[in-house]
Amino acid sequence: MREGAPTGELTAPANSVPPGLAERVRAGERAALARALTLVESLPLEGASSGARVPPDLAPLLAGRVRAHVVGVTGAPGAGKSTLVGRLAVHLRERGRRVGVLAVDPSSPFSGGALLGDRVRMAVPVADPGLFVRSVASRGHQGGLALAVFRMVRVMAAAGMETVLVETVGAGQNDVGVLGVADTVVLVLNPATGDEIQALKAGIVEIGDVMVVNKADLPGADETYRAVTSALDIASSPDPGWRVPVVRVSALQDRGLDLLIEALERHRIHLSSGPAGLRRRRIQAEWELRAALLAAVERRLVAPLTASGRWAHLVDRLASGELSADEAAEAVLGSLNP
Amino acid sequence: MREGAPTGELTAPANSVPPGLAERVRAGERAALARALTLVESLPLEGASSGARVPPDLAPLLAGRVRAHVVGVTGAPGAGKSTLVGRLAVHLRERGRRVGVLAVDPSSPFSGGALLGDRVRMAVPVADPGLFVRSVASRGHQGGLALAVFRMVRVMAAAGMETVLVETVGAGQNDVGVLGVADTVVLVLNPATGDEIQALKAGIVEIGDVMVVNKADLPGADETYRAVTSALDIASSPDPGWRVPVVRVSALQDRGLDLLIEALERHRIHLSSGPAGLRRRRIQAEWELRAALLAAVERRLVAPLTASGRWAHLVDRLASGELSADEAAEAVLGSLNP
Repeated sequence: MREGAPTGELTAPANSVPPGLAERVRAGERAALARALTLVESLPLEGASSGARVPPDLAPLLAGRVRAHVVGVTGAPGAGKSTLVGRLAVHLRERGRRVGVLAVDPSSPFSGGALLGDRVRMAVPVADPGLFVRSVASRGHQGGLALAVFRMVRVMAAAGMETVLVETVGAGQNDVGVLGVADTVVLVLNPATGDEIQALKAGIVEIGDVMVVNKADLPGADETYRAVTSALDIASSPDPGWRVPVVRVSALQDRGLDLLIEALERHRIHLSSGPAGLRRRRIQAEWELRAALLAAVERRLVAPLTASGRWAHLVDRLASGELSADEAAEAVLGSLNP
Repeated sequence: MREGAPTGELTAPANSVPPGLAERVRAGERAALARALTLVESLPLEGASSGARVPPDLAPLLAGRVRAHVVGVTGAPGAGKSTLVGRLAVHLRERGRRVGVLAVDPSSPFSGGALLGDRVRMAVPVADPGLFVRSVASRGHQGGLALAVFRMVRVMAAAGMETVLVETVGAGQNDVGVLGVADTVVLVLNPATGDEIQALKAGIVEIGDVMVVNKADLPGADETYRAVTSALDIASSPDPGWRVPVVRVSALQDRGLDLLIEALERHRIHLSSGPAGLRRRRIQAEWELRAALLAAVERRLVAPLTASGRWAHLVDRLASGELSADEAAEAVLGSLNP
């Protein structure tokens, strides 16, 4: 146990794990949490280039049941996700909950430092010890982004965060990968017009566990609300026991957040009682396993071949038409030395 | 050679390959092309459940250099990608080019049969033998979507299509996977307002090889055009030899398509002369290899474990907190029998 160790060692080289880090994260030390998040974020990527696995000192933070309520907030760019997440965090804090925020959105002011950032940051009390905001770079993870997010959520939960808000861009189907981590998915929509309303009416919309029509003070919000409601009527629900609520919110004007938090709380209770929670945990576990498997393939197969130059050679032969992609893939799999 | 074989055999069970199919695709037979596309689309998925590989009869269609100009068209939902792709196809046909269209967009009228579909379909002459439109289901590919798209593009090129337009939703970074197949990426933007303009000005925008401001007749188009242009000024270009053009288009009013086609043609020529083309082919080959590797992992590792029930057992142990994701992933890799 090194709980009293000087915090100076937290500035040691980025890839070394200070002794006792896991215990200090569990004790709620902010500097330790920040360091652990940096370490687990870089793990899949480092693993890919160095062959490294999870350091044993960190492993205890990355296993076991996640105790936090993990809420994924998704929607197209410009839907106002960041402002909503900022407001949600403030309201949850007012209710006394410890809140972690992970922004996995390249256009998020949390991660991108965009022009909108100041406005949102002002809304979030920076010195609050019950709030921890962290961005996740969405590039350069070599397919390890989903795993990095899983691990960062686990670390936040281990540090005592009761709710972890994960902000992602979710317009593409593939992004759902990151949302495999969430207990509750909030889909944020804007007041829509024309084509978008038609698409909504035709049921072509991702379905969250909770739907938010944001910017509810703008024209078109009521029509959008009705279109979403009718889209839900024709959509087949993956969870028949849960009626997806549609909540009108204006994050910027701080309206509707109470209703949203109530909806989140109802979904949390829904998951904690009955078969839906078990089903969700299995889905999350399957996502996490696939994410870990991709990282392991990268570490055990791609990294050694890259180091030896064989990967580039296979790519060149594929580019020149000498090999098919399937032949090259079989050659990669065949190189595995268990 | 079975070129004269009755087309009746094309209605044989979906997973069997009629004799001589590859030759018939190469000869430009539409029914053969349709059948081959269905076969290669379902391959990654079928492989995952049955352990099957590419049938030898299809393999010749899936290797070698792709001769078509592959144009990826991406942008957020509602950007008007489908209408633009429909118009592009018509204008390319007027220039005598044989055109294939692959719609990998869940909200595309090409793939979804949405309410907007009729309008777009009217713009595309259905009986034109030089045009082939095909949708790709974006769900249910178990990670094999990117590979399915690569293969479908290869089949279209083998059937003599000179330009293949691939329509995808690309707001999320992860969707770029599908765009790894493209020679030229067209990013479609709408006239933006408020937050979106701020994001553009801050340079937070995906960069295509060609940028389109669609619906250029609507208010805000000029401001968006300027914001995109200045975003390009601060973005770091992955291809210093190519100055990304910004083209104002109104697909619905059929305006600006000539300029867009000219920009596409200039990019094609740029790739065919000089190092940029080789670099692009290597990037495409690396994407295709990763996609094929994922499918091979699914087929050789996940499928056998799923069949034996061990996969579900690992998922359950991960869900209950008994195993970490990394331990479960190592167990999966360790099961490989080369």
